[in-house]
Amino acid sequence: MKNVKAYAAQSADKDLEPFQIDRREPGPEDVEIEILYCGICHSDIHTARNEWGGTQYPCVPGHEIVGKVTRVGKNVKKYKEGETVGVGCFVDSCGHCKNCEDHQEQYCLNGPTATYNSPSPEDKDVRTYGGYSTHIVVQEDFVLKISDKLPLNAVAPLLCAGITTYSPLRYWKVKKGDKVGVVGLGGLGHMAVKLASSMGAEVTMLSRSPEKEKDAKELGAKHFELTTSKENMKRMAGTFDLIIDTVSAQHDYNEYLNLLNTNGVMVLLGIPPEPSPVQAGQLIMKRKSLVGSLVGGIKETQEMLDYCAEHGIVSDVEMINIDQINEAYERTLNSDVRYRFVIDMKSLKN
Amino acid sequence: MKNVKAYAAQSADKDLEPFQIDRREPGPEDVEIEILYCGICHSDIHTARNEWGGTQYPCVPGHEIVGKVTRVGKNVKKYKEGETVGVGCFVDSCGHCKNCEDHQEQYCLNGPTATYNSPSPEDKDVRTYGGYSTHIVVQEDFVLKISDKLPLNAVAPLLCAGITTYSPLRYWKVKKGDKVGVVGLGGLGHMAVKLASSMGAEVTMLSRSPEKEKDAKELGAKHFELTTSKENMKRMAGTFDLIIDTVSAQHDYNEYLNLLNTNGVMVLLGIPPEPSPVQAGQLIMKRKSLVGSLVGGIKETQEMLDYCAEHGIVSDVEMINIDQINEAYERTLNSDVRYRFVIDMKSLKN
Repeated sequence: MKNVKAYAAQSADKDLEPFQIDRREPGPEDVEIEILYCGICHSDIHTARNEWGGTQYPCVPGHEIVGKVTRVGKNVKKYKEGETVGVGCFVDSCGHCKNCEDHQEQYCLNGPTATYNSPSPEDKDVRTYGGYSTHIVVQEDFVLKISDKLPLNAVAPLLCAGITTYSPLRYWKVKKGDKVGVVGLGGLGHMAVKLASSMGAEVTMLSRSPEKEKDAKELGAKHFELTTSKENMKRMAGTFDLIIDTVSAQHDYNEYLNLLNTNGVMVLLGIPPEPSPVQAGQLIMKRKSLVGSLVGGIKETQEMLDYCAEHGIVSDVEMINIDQINEAYERTLNSDVRYRFVIDMKSLKN
Repeated sequence: MKNVKAYAAQSADKDLEPFQIDRREPGPEDVEIEILYCGICHSDIHTARNEWGGTQYPCVPGHEIVGKVTRVGKNVKKYKEGETVGVGCFVDSCGHCKNCEDHQEQYCLNGPTATYNSPSPEDKDVRTYGGYSTHIVVQEDFVLKISDKLPLNAVAPLLCAGITTYSPLRYWKVKKGDKVGVVGLGGLGHMAVKLASSMGAEVTMLSRSPEKEKDAKELGAKHFELTTSKENMKRMAGTFDLIIDTVSAQHDYNEYLNLLNTNGVMVLLGIPPEPSPVQAGQLIMKRKSLVGSLVGGIKETQEMLDYCAEHGIVSDVEMINIDQINEAYERTLNSDVRYRFVIDMKSLKN
């Protein structure tokens, strides 16, 4: 057992504070990782503040982790000390259900072990602690290889924001020339724009904020359309093959479904507080689909990381020290970040 | 021009009554058909009563038509006098948009011409008149071949109820062993059960009415489950690959989405009066799809008719004379029909 530094929420209404946590000794299949960078995902905030319910305290968030291997268990074959690795949204799964066998551990029928706030594989009474700490110990099969070609701090957000947008683009087979709309330009949205355009899609940023046009186009969007203009929305009716909706605030799905072409697909990535009414006619009249997607399996996450290394794709990041975390949370909630905060974990070690 | 007998609604609040309509002389590409049978679809009632808006009166409904060819235009190649043919939900489309070129005329981007209450191809100021009449004249390309192997009265409902359920089963690739749920046992539901089970799926009838169990199983359902039982609904969570939802009354989609397995698809065929709230989390956590589907193209309708002839599949029908139409409407609204009324059009000719 190793006692390491971390930052934790001690209750739903308190700021995150320094905290010491125990990490297990690496077992035969485990990889011990010194964390270099950890991205701040909106889910971290939801969980730290118990907005989805079920948070147990102390809670150490963080599931966009890049680090260096410091020790490996005796049976570990894929990694060795000093290598650069990543950890994403989950650190274990049952391994034997149909979904695990299909490399879709994110949909493990027995429930994957999330990187934080999940019952720990080694002790179900203890919750997992995430990446806001100096070290983490993860089973080899849930560790990702990270290329050294790219800036490692900007790679960290790929472990959640990257795979969350990559997976639906692949599952619904986005290809060259497809017209893809992206709703919301934040952590997920900016990755959706980069990834979809890298796949040859003609990307349109659909936004309520005119000031985002410049960024959207620099990220790879060919078009920028204000969704606040009824005229725009009318003109775009029936024009998109796929829409990636990254917004977790309450909004009207039908307005966007109306923008889909025949057989078009609208992918929900955010969970608004309340269910949102859907007009059946919107789906029926042109065989449209309203779908959801959750991160991606380990195999696909590795594929995404390799794809990003090959295509030079990383997240746009703003670096912070860990003592700026609470301020960063507020700024994330105000969409005041371009486009992902990443914690430099050296700031925790000093 | 030929003046023929029909039954028409003269306004939204009046019963259907005898009426004379003109049918055009067959043009070079036209087929003139003597109607033998016409099914009663719920859409007929919605339109006759202007429940969807946009109905122009007089309105002659009917789009589940089987008849005999009486005359053909000089360029008609596929049909000759005396042959048995069918007409479904639309009688024309632009022919040159992407969807028409893809044999998906039902999604024609310029709007297909519906069999009734659509601007006529020959005169946009006149609405098309449907199958509650002795004859209809339809362009060759929108006429279907009907096998004489099956009882023709029971074939009529295949032209709408059959294709409406066949098309999504094919589009979402239902195969042997798939677990398919069917919500609602009416005109569409009973065809969904027959067709899905004929494709080798393990079909469960999901119903609020215990008295429907016997029928559902005779139609081909392996299981019958009451959706009014919370225990049943809990036990079935995550078990279906595809759910065909035929209900057009207001209902909670989330209850059924919860029954889908990973990557499961719920197909809406009915349009409830109000939009129905959808929980994004239901879709996201297991990559589920909520989709819609509208009848099928001409090519696929022919494929369905041939498939039904090969597999001996027809609708369960209750025959009426045309002067029973208004009573039949009321009984349809009360789900008091097993499972489709079909008008014997001889009763109009006499």
